[in-house]
Amino acid sequence: MINRMDPSKIFFLVDENTHEHCLPGFLQLLEELPELEILEVEAGEDSKSAEVVVQLWEALAALEADRQALMLNLGGGVITDLGGFLAGTYLRGIPFINIPTSLLAMVDASAGGKNGINLAGMKNRVGLFLEPEAVFILPGFLESLPQRERVSGFAEMLKHGLIADAAYWEELQDFDIHKAIPDEAIIRRSVEIKQQVVQEDFRESGLRKILNFGHSVGHALESLSHQTDRPLLHGEAIALGMIVELQLSVKYSGLSQRDADAAAEDIRKIFRGLECKAEPAAVLHLMRGDKKNVQQQLRLSLLKEIGSAVPDVPVDEDGLVEVLAQML
Amino acid sequence: MINRMDPSKIFFLVDENTHEHCLPGFLQLLEELPELEILEVEAGEDSKSAEVVVQLWEALAALEADRQALMLNLGGGVITDLGGFLAGTYLRGIPFINIPTSLLAMVDASAGGKNGINLAGMKNRVGLFLEPEAVFILPGFLESLPQRERVSGFAEMLKHGLIADAAYWEELQDFDIHKAIPDEAIIRRSVEIKQQVVQEDFRESGLRKILNFGHSVGHALESLSHQTDRPLLHGEAIALGMIVELQLSVKYSGLSQRDADAAAEDIRKIFRGLECKAEPAAVLHLMRGDKKNVQQQLRLSLLKEIGSAVPDVPVDEDGLVEVLAQML
Repeated sequence: MINRMDPSKIFFLVDENTHEHCLPGFLQLLEELPELEILEVEAGEDSKSAEVVVQLWEALAALEADRQALMLNLGGGVITDLGGFLAGTYLRGIPFINIPTSLLAMVDASAGGKNGINLAGMKNRVGLFLEPEAVFILPGFLESLPQRERVSGFAEMLKHGLIADAAYWEELQDFDIHKAIPDEAIIRRSVEIKQQVVQEDFRESGLRKILNFGHSVGHALESLSHQTDRPLLHGEAIALGMIVELQLSVKYSGLSQRDADAAAEDIRKIFRGLECKAEPAAVLHLMRGDKKNVQQQLRLSLLKEIGSAVPDVPVDEDGLVEVLAQML
Repeated sequence: MINRMDPSKIFFLVDENTHEHCLPGFLQLLEELPELEILEVEAGEDSKSAEVVVQLWEALAALEADRQALMLNLGGGVITDLGGFLAGTYLRGIPFINIPTSLLAMVDASAGGKNGINLAGMKNRVGLFLEPEAVFILPGFLESLPQRERVSGFAEMLKHGLIADAAYWEELQDFDIHKAIPDEAIIRRSVEIKQQVVQEDFRESGLRKILNFGHSVGHALESLSHQTDRPLLHGEAIALGMIVELQLSVKYSGLSQRDADAAAEDIRKIFRGLECKAEPAAVLHLMRGDKKNVQQQLRLSLLKEIGSAVPDVPVDEDGLVEVLAQML
């Protein structure tokens, strides 16, 4: 496929880890390659910054990238988020392909066309809706992924089951992410669910927001944990966010208490010992800045039942604080 | 229309000139307004920078702009280019309307969906293809525009005639831009030509490039003039660029020498006394970085005849230098 695109030059975006552990193996898969350049950023969320974007724009310009250049984003969600925004804005858009190396990026970040950077402490405050030319899923990368990160990525797969496919949710309960590496089939079902939702609502005017289940609370917990000495991984924060939002679903969108409790219990079993001591008031404060709110009214994507979600549910602040105090 | 969009807040992007001279009059045209904020940047091309974009992203975040916010870009091409990029990337895109206040912006920058900023001395190196929700054309703004800028903007109207409509080109010869202010009809014909071309090729894979006639050479002359104490206005540089590219059209795309000479003479009559002493080698050097080149080969949009252009004509460097030496 890459050869068919006949790029003038290939630009790999990597971090120091994917540069060392993933790039050599990937290059061996390719037959012939045009000239290539490697852009390396530091691993971690801090690279999703305006400062790094400006440096990378300047690097592309200095390396004389033209409109026939191709970007290959090889890494986790930070790399695909950053690289998609970079490619989407340089020269008003050059083609790019995502090659996710983490489970989280495979089932979430690399598909669906969202990209972006953080700004002023707010996640994805700047970015684009823009699909890559392709996403290459290579489960082999998961073998070298630390177990904690693999389990974290599993949270988004669980979410796909909860919002859209009760049978997939059950199937995932039989999979032991602590012992086994997900194969292509089980990964693909997650990507399919995400793509189905996205296709019906690319710009997130309605349905797409259901993908946000667990994220309104989860993003806030993630941000707060980064101010402590025990930062949560994204999927861990989403797991906690889903536990809270399951209970909110009982209160605001008609989920049965029994289903909420059972699902929360299943999540807790997978994310053993995970906890987060956040002040409800601090969580609320961060959630007020969420992109999905309308005219200062909190709006969350919640569940009607296991396997079925509904976007834009108004949630009152007192009710939220009460559930947060109870669940965290 | 603005009321119909029901924005949560309106953000005006202005420079100090349009803030003082255009905003008060525009606000009087509106009946009811939601809350509004004013973002002011310094007048001039230097504001089309990564640094200013980052400041404006941060300002929008600090002012809690949400997805229902509306940006109104009130100014010349710098403001519409900068504001379109800002709105297109903040929160992955909020709606924006262009309200051009210069002739150049009315007939060129505000329509067609290109926006962007400069980087490392290269024009529009970063940006998006993205249409505004609407463009408001208010010829009244032209009355307070300095005459030199009005004449400069006329260059893009002349270009529209040359590339797509010989009758419009003739009509423009009968219009004295030094004495009269263009009315809505003559402006609208320019916008129509541009929109027709753009509709057929939004992402500039082919036909759209004909809008670039006069710009490959013109942009280089504009950049070089900014290193001197006599900087050219954009339209002035394009006028000179068109004179050079008319002669290149004789050499590379079959325009008759007679038509080229007559058109160049007409342009010189309008841009009286305009000149630019640039070294052909320096012009060539800048043109090598042009976005339209393919695999290091110079490609220009040139004329087959008056009213008809052809994109992507390969031009050899020796031939270019020869014509530059002769025409400048």
